Amino acid sequence: MIFALEYAFRAFSEDEVPIGAIILDPKSGKIITAQHNQMRCSGNPIAHAEICAITEACRILNQQRLNGYVLYVTLEPCPMCAQAISFARLDKVIFGAYDPKGGGIIHGPRIFDQSTCYFQSEIIGGVHEEACQNILKDFFISKR
Amino acid sequence: MIFALEYAFRAFSEDEVPIGAIILDPKSGKIITAQHNQMRCSGNPIAHAEICAITEACRILNQQRLNGYVLYVTLEPCPMCAQAISFARLDKVIFGAYDPKGGGIIHGPRIFDQSTCYFQSEIIGGVHEEACQNILKDFFISKR
Repeated sequence: MIFALEYAFRAFSEDEVPIGAIILDPKSGKIITAQHNQMRCSGNPIAHAEICAITEACRILNQQRLNGYVLYVTLEPCPMCAQAISFARLDKVIFGAYDPKGGGIIHGPRIFDQSTCYFQSEIIGGVHEEACQNILKDFFISKR
Repeated sequence: MIFALEYAFRAFSEDEVPIGAIILDPKSGKIITAQHNQMRCSGNPIAHAEICAITEACRILNQQRLNGYVLYVTLEPCPMCAQAISFARLDKVIFGAYDPKGGGIIHGPRIFDQSTCYFQSEIIGGVHEEACQNILKDFFISKR
């Protein structure tokens, strides 16, 4: 998660909402890809850190499914990203801060609890929660 | 919708699940982009027709938000695409076939009805429903 946070800081320095995500092979400990939110630089409202990480991991591994891999992300994924995680078949999602306003796993539509969600990833939330929350708070304070 | 269906047929001929999407400027009648499902050719589980169309329209128009534009898509968008549509601020979504198993607007998490969904697009479903449904049926029959 520290490494995902590093990417959140990188986003901050590029004036993007500071969220970082990495996809890791838990067996080897190898990081497949590290991405941050790229909505502003790409001009694409879909370019959340998780979407960028899944797209990049599938490209690098040359496979459509990421069974066996783990996603670390600094903020609870939104409904779009939660569904994308399910489509990508990521084994596990470990996130930092909870997101009552925009989250889609523990909050909002709770994507993985829907009967129409055919693949449930294991979820662990609140890892390095304070640090992940603080960088977002600092970013939005800097925007006021 | 006929033009979106044409893209669904194009997907079929490329061995992709046949779903087509177009983004249109309703004032001028100009089609901004026409896309089909590209999961197989891109090796990306996220490359649904709607995601490809939003990404491409934002790139072409050089803007992150698509207020004023309309999305036509041959199948009810899934939860991932429904949330992406909300993020992209598309005014209206007109879809063909309903999708009780995987849809995210009328079925499943009903993304636009969630209190955490901050932008609701106008939704019209069932347009050229039978044709949009039949091409999907024919595709899956051909896969048996």
